[in-house]
Amino acid sequence: MDDISFAVLGTGGIGRRTLDISRHKEGLTPVAACDRRGVAIDPEGLDVDELLAATGGDAAGDDAPATADGGTAVERRGLAASAQAESTDAPIDDVIAASDEIDAVLLALPNLEHDFIPRVADRFVDAGYEGVVVDVLKRSRVIGMLDERADAFEGSGITFVCGAGATPGFLTGAAALAAQSFIEVESVEIWWGVGLKSGYEDNRGTVREDVAHLDGYDLDAVRDLTDEEIEEIIDARGGVLEFRDMEHADDVLLERAGICDAADVTVGGVLDVRSDEKPTTTTVRVTGRTFDGETGTNTFELDDATSMAANVNGPALGYLKAAVRRNRAGEYGVFGPAELMPGF
Amino acid sequence: MDDISFAVLGTGGIGRRTLDISRHKEGLTPVAACDRRGVAIDPEGLDVDELLAATGGDAAGDDAPATADGGTAVERRGLAASAQAESTDAPIDDVIAASDEIDAVLLALPNLEHDFIPRVADRFVDAGYEGVVVDVLKRSRVIGMLDERADAFEGSGITFVCGAGATPGFLTGAAALAAQSFIEVESVEIWWGVGLKSGYEDNRGTVREDVAHLDGYDLDAVRDLTDEEIEEIIDARGGVLEFRDMEHADDVLLERAGICDAADVTVGGVLDVRSDEKPTTTTVRVTGRTFDGETGTNTFELDDATSMAANVNGPALGYLKAAVRRNRAGEYGVFGPAELMPGF
Repeated sequence: MDDISFAVLGTGGIGRRTLDISRHKEGLTPVAACDRRGVAIDPEGLDVDELLAATGGDAAGDDAPATADGGTAVERRGLAASAQAESTDAPIDDVIAASDEIDAVLLALPNLEHDFIPRVADRFVDAGYEGVVVDVLKRSRVIGMLDERADAFEGSGITFVCGAGATPGFLTGAAALAAQSFIEVESVEIWWGVGLKSGYEDNRGTVREDVAHLDGYDLDAVRDLTDEEIEEIIDARGGVLEFRDMEHADDVLLERAGICDAADVTVGGVLDVRSDEKPTTTTVRVTGRTFDGETGTNTFELDDATSMAANVNGPALGYLKAAVRRNRAGEYGVFGPAELMPGF
Repeated sequence: MDDISFAVLGTGGIGRRTLDISRHKEGLTPVAACDRRGVAIDPEGLDVDELLAATGGDAAGDDAPATADGGTAVERRGLAASAQAESTDAPIDDVIAASDEIDAVLLALPNLEHDFIPRVADRFVDAGYEGVVVDVLKRSRVIGMLDERADAFEGSGITFVCGAGATPGFLTGAAALAAQSFIEVESVEIWWGVGLKSGYEDNRGTVREDVAHLDGYDLDAVRDLTDEEIEEIIDARGGVLEFRDMEHADDVLLERAGICDAADVTVGGVLDVRSDEKPTTTTVRVTGRTFDGETGTNTFELDDATSMAANVNGPALGYLKAAVRRNRAGEYGVFGPAELMPGF
């Protein structure tokens, strides 16, 4: 496959790590990056070493781990601190203006309103962008909003991959593959563990959102809590939050890919904000019936030593590569990660 | 994705099970099948129930399990016993003559000479076939022969997927996905278990080939042994053959996909010809280094209850679907299964 030029919108945790990891990957050239007030564009390829150093140290070092939903860590210094960057009032527009040179765009923007990512995508459509757009979100409702734009993406020539991070991306991809033994999938159980001690301060927003998934809470209730009240909820659980039946897009994306009904998918996990060790092993279990009448469970397990950051950013770039291939072959629209796997 | 019409060349174990499983899959219509002396073609779709019943019972029932290399089981009755079939002296040519109506061809032919599959592919090229061809072989050397034909495939419009069965297909696909946590893959360990009691008689040829992988034997040595001598070798091991460092295409295919060097891949397994229970659990272990400096091992494990047959034929159809999508988008040439996964 030919070389792929890509842009990263957002230089928080996800964005910085994407740049970092791309240095180790074949055929990926970062040509643009932006944050709220700065933009760096170089069609020949950004100097990632300089950019990461100038803006706050190596992404792999003291940077916050990525969170399960791809939330970004707090930025250290603005991108404008890099010698390659310029200050700007319209960073995304600046990247769009250069998008003729960009094969793929990874959206590593903070999760603000639910429609923030879809609205950013609209701006690429309005500019007639042809290429790939990837997000690493997890919320089911965003996928519906993207689906409403499928015709617009096709008209523009955009291949949009949604939810390409650790979960749903990596883990639904694994489920789609593990399903291949079966003629009918009975259940998909996705169970994740995240240790977030050193990244806790940078991920308060995400942790707050996670609290909404605990029994007795919801997004509305959590929005009105003070930081101290959130802290009390976490303290009461010894820093360990366990989640069952989360609203994760995994179910929707597996149904889209024809693997099983959304109702057959369960997602849960354990977040430990007082340890960097994973409190539980991230596992995907796919149970199904084989053509010869047996019932079995295939399993995919991530080593506890692989950080959530590694498991968000590696797959995001892997799916980005797959999507560029689709895009170059003229396949446009909205895809879930599992749809980029072998068919079921 | 639109409906896919497909043909199966060969109606031994693999071919029959492909037809059987396709009944349970969305969007797959078998339109042609052939064996040595018969051919059945119906662009509206074959009646698989009748075809399997007429030619020797349900594929999922008393039929022999598929072998690790996709070797076919002995045929029961010729395809011509089916009311849908006709006798023919040139079954493959008959299918080729109808290939305008065929999106994909699964080669489930016996492993005869190494170049048998490549030469069958040549005949499709000569006829100007545009579509997908899939094999479920495991031998590395065949892939080289197919690669020599890549230009011819591109000229004709053929997307050829080689080794799409359990191994290398399913398991290298899993390795490609499991690698996504890492920036560098240090090792891929593929370890399979097959219980072949009820399928032993039908798989003597494959077992003989497997014996060549035992310490102290090679293909030349094994070719000259009598059935009794083979039997003695197996008896001396209590019916259980353990293999290390096999010549499997997994290594070549993972290198092609850019996952790791072929030398970093090891393939082994245990074959028990006196039990249908798997003597060991089929597992893929991918060890690598993450961008943040950790070393970990991600694992993919198939339930012992999933038969080798299920694990050959499901993935073969899954990759076939993926390949049809590539083919329709104009991507031609030779692909390993891992190349149909997210990029590394």
